[in-house]
Amino acid sequence: MAKESFVEQIADIEKDFPQWYTDVVVKTKLVDYGPVKGTMVIRPYGYAIWENIQSELNALFKANGYENAYFPLLIPMSFFTKEAEHVEGFAPEVAVVTHAGGEELSEPLAIRPTSETIIGNMYSKWLQSYRELPILINQWANVMRWEKTTRPFLRTSEFLWQEGHSAHASEEEAEKETAKMLSVYKEFAENCLAIPVICGRKTEKEKFAGAVATYGMEAMMKDGKSLQAGTTHFLGQNFAKAFDIKFLDKDGVQKYAYTTSFGVSTRLIGALIMAHGDQRGLVLPPVVAPVQVVIVPIAAKKGGVLEKCAEIKEKLERVGVRVKLDDADNSPGWKFNEWEMKGVPLRIELGPRDIEEGKALIFRRDTLDKNAYSLNGIEGAVKELLVTVQRDMLEAARARRDGRIVYADDLDGILKGVDGGNFVKAGWCGCRECEDKVKTYAQATARVFAEGETAKTCAICGKKAKHVIIFARAY
Amino acid sequence: MAKESFVEQIADIEKDFPQWYTDVVVKTKLVDYGPVKGTMVIRPYGYAIWENIQSELNALFKANGYENAYFPLLIPMSFFTKEAEHVEGFAPEVAVVTHAGGEELSEPLAIRPTSETIIGNMYSKWLQSYRELPILINQWANVMRWEKTTRPFLRTSEFLWQEGHSAHASEEEAEKETAKMLSVYKEFAENCLAIPVICGRKTEKEKFAGAVATYGMEAMMKDGKSLQAGTTHFLGQNFAKAFDIKFLDKDGVQKYAYTTSFGVSTRLIGALIMAHGDQRGLVLPPVVAPVQVVIVPIAAKKGGVLEKCAEIKEKLERVGVRVKLDDADNSPGWKFNEWEMKGVPLRIELGPRDIEEGKALIFRRDTLDKNAYSLNGIEGAVKELLVTVQRDMLEAARARRDGRIVYADDLDGILKGVDGGNFVKAGWCGCRECEDKVKTYAQATARVFAEGETAKTCAICGKKAKHVIIFARAY
Repeated sequence: MAKESFVEQIADIEKDFPQWYTDVVVKTKLVDYGPVKGTMVIRPYGYAIWENIQSELNALFKANGYENAYFPLLIPMSFFTKEAEHVEGFAPEVAVVTHAGGEELSEPLAIRPTSETIIGNMYSKWLQSYRELPILINQWANVMRWEKTTRPFLRTSEFLWQEGHSAHASEEEAEKETAKMLSVYKEFAENCLAIPVICGRKTEKEKFAGAVATYGMEAMMKDGKSLQAGTTHFLGQNFAKAFDIKFLDKDGVQKYAYTTSFGVSTRLIGALIMAHGDQRGLVLPPVVAPVQVVIVPIAAKKGGVLEKCAEIKEKLERVGVRVKLDDADNSPGWKFNEWEMKGVPLRIELGPRDIEEGKALIFRRDTLDKNAYSLNGIEGAVKELLVTVQRDMLEAARARRDGRIVYADDLDGILKGVDGGNFVKAGWCGCRECEDKVKTYAQATARVFAEGETAKTCAICGKKAKHVIIFARAY
Repeated sequence: MAKESFVEQIADIEKDFPQWYTDVVVKTKLVDYGPVKGTMVIRPYGYAIWENIQSELNALFKANGYENAYFPLLIPMSFFTKEAEHVEGFAPEVAVVTHAGGEELSEPLAIRPTSETIIGNMYSKWLQSYRELPILINQWANVMRWEKTTRPFLRTSEFLWQEGHSAHASEEEAEKETAKMLSVYKEFAENCLAIPVICGRKTEKEKFAGAVATYGMEAMMKDGKSLQAGTTHFLGQNFAKAFDIKFLDKDGVQKYAYTTSFGVSTRLIGALIMAHGDQRGLVLPPVVAPVQVVIVPIAAKKGGVLEKCAEIKEKLERVGVRVKLDDADNSPGWKFNEWEMKGVPLRIELGPRDIEEGKALIFRRDTLDKNAYSLNGIEGAVKELLVTVQRDMLEAARARRDGRIVYADDLDGILKGVDGGNFVKAGWCGCRECEDKVKTYAQATARVFAEGETAKTCAICGKKAKHVIIFARAY
């Protein structure tokens, strides 16, 4: 049977999750490997998801006062040394241009791994008075971090992202901005990607190089591992002092600004795949799905079928649905498999008998349910269903995750927890040594502080606990 | 007077066009200079124009069957040597990454100056059967060409662009695509940028390195110089053979594909400035203007004025107009100058007396006319005016250009023509020597063939003419 042969092409999701992931991203033509090790080509189907992500985030950023801009790719190496922690964190991963225009450069140039330095340099040039604050700018760009082990979307030497950079007059305002943009990310992850996230502060070890504090949102993948889906950083005056970002305040005194930065990347596509996918392939939430509805004609050669399908397509387009009519020469079964693998949220099946009966079958990719709907007003039913699918996917992901959060009160408990594919909450004394021990013993890292929770003792050393941490294995 | 002091900041457009350009791009905050020589920062106001350009082009590309994708920034240097003309053209301008991740790379990597090579490499991997043709993919990306002399938007080491890349089964189809995309560009330039363009084939000397034929669209700037606003290339089988882009044809035979490529870049923002700008600054066509209408309250502190302005703003937003209400603390005169400099197409002025009389004044940036319009239904009047401004700007630019196209039948005539700020049509025998002579004698280059026109003799050597060429000084 065609269906089985199709499914056979994808590794077993239960037995070999990494291979399942690789099979899905390649076979659905989301991505391909570039000729240089560690690079990826984002193919049209994958890029269309990214464009939908961009469009949703742009709307949220704009609502929060951000404007887009573009800063140069190449950064003088000397910029990195201006912020001590920053250079330590990023220098080992930087790709360096040494020659250009047929000559050796007098100063080597880094391909941006992130843009705090070059943007700081420009803010320092632009900013004069408190009246110009806050500065709220976002950039969509490619960045490069030379990684040893790479996987499409999850970790590649070049990736696409957005990086927001704000500058403020006061510490309090910058801290608020850091928190606000984290909540914008959470809203986006849950409402657009249907991925529930746990937000919180990161430990010193896990924070962004050069930040005072980093906050992250962590998403659980279907193998129980965590994926850091986005981060926001409160940078204090670290970059302001390094790059001389100063302003004349109301009181006539020159002061350093407080800055923040925040970013999400094409990693989010990896998160979508691993948070929702199943044995048949992708399961895409309607908000970011390139195709929200596919129409498959049954017995397409019979009179009137294709015409009716085209009519439905037009109706759906008119109400803003992204719809595709698959009128290719393949069998309906082949098409079912193809579009299920590609994760299209809804499939409309329409044959001569359906037309006679004035109805169509609609298949839901997320629940695999199939039900009949009247052709009369089908566009309304589809729009409602898309909303339902979006909501149900979030709730299903939330239920899966919530069933996999456990508590541990010793190292063995943490190991057992993450071995079982769980997020593990445990008390922590706050010392780096204990954090490192968890890494060595359980190959798990501190994801975020579990905000509002308390524990009596550190699960690692038994001393008094200062925090509760969520430990997990992570991408 | 405030107005004068404002205008004084911008160099005289008649006396010093280059300085006028620099003043305008910097003072209107379209762009700033990056820390590395030859790089630019595209500031929010400039980037918003680019986003509008992207949105218009994406719609046109989509209507022509193109999908967006993303290919890697870094290209193995060896790729360039596979197409002999291509490497000769681009190698001297390439920026090279030699170190990454703390190590020297085994093969140096080029930052893409254009992506025919890496995209050819991927097409060769993907393409198998004639059924998959044509391949129609577009990419929005940054590219890098190390230039000695740079100017913001016009020539920078890094710039943003789109590059379309198609592959076809037959020569005829690929040639048609090259012509079709040129006409798409023309439609875009005229309808969206309000810039009339002359389209035609380029000479061998001026063609893209590696192409069989290059076609360009040339736009006249206000100083009479030409700006190449976009190009399309028929690549024949040059890249297909270099990168092994083959397919199994209907007849069971393996054949090389025919490919094309085409691109426009952030140069277009430079074109907008120099095609329409005047002594007061920018004049932006409504389709790509970040702000289409600015509302300036007069005697804003008087009761009801700000409220009425906000009401009009809402009305305009509801009909899809990009509108800004300038309720800052500056004087109306200051605001007039500011927004005129920024090229906003329409300004609505509203004071207490206007409200009493149920009308508002609307100022047109392109013609500098000011007229009263009834507040009742003002959103309809504004929408109509925006269409009128867009059309009138194109027609004004066309009239300016058409008055500056002259004919010459000898070298002196060409020199005199371009000295006078004209496009000069002249007969040409077709030899490179004559083309070079024009460059030396008149500092002008062959822009495009004047299609459909004939001449008896070559204006340079006096031999039989094969073509009529448009010569001009160019950006």
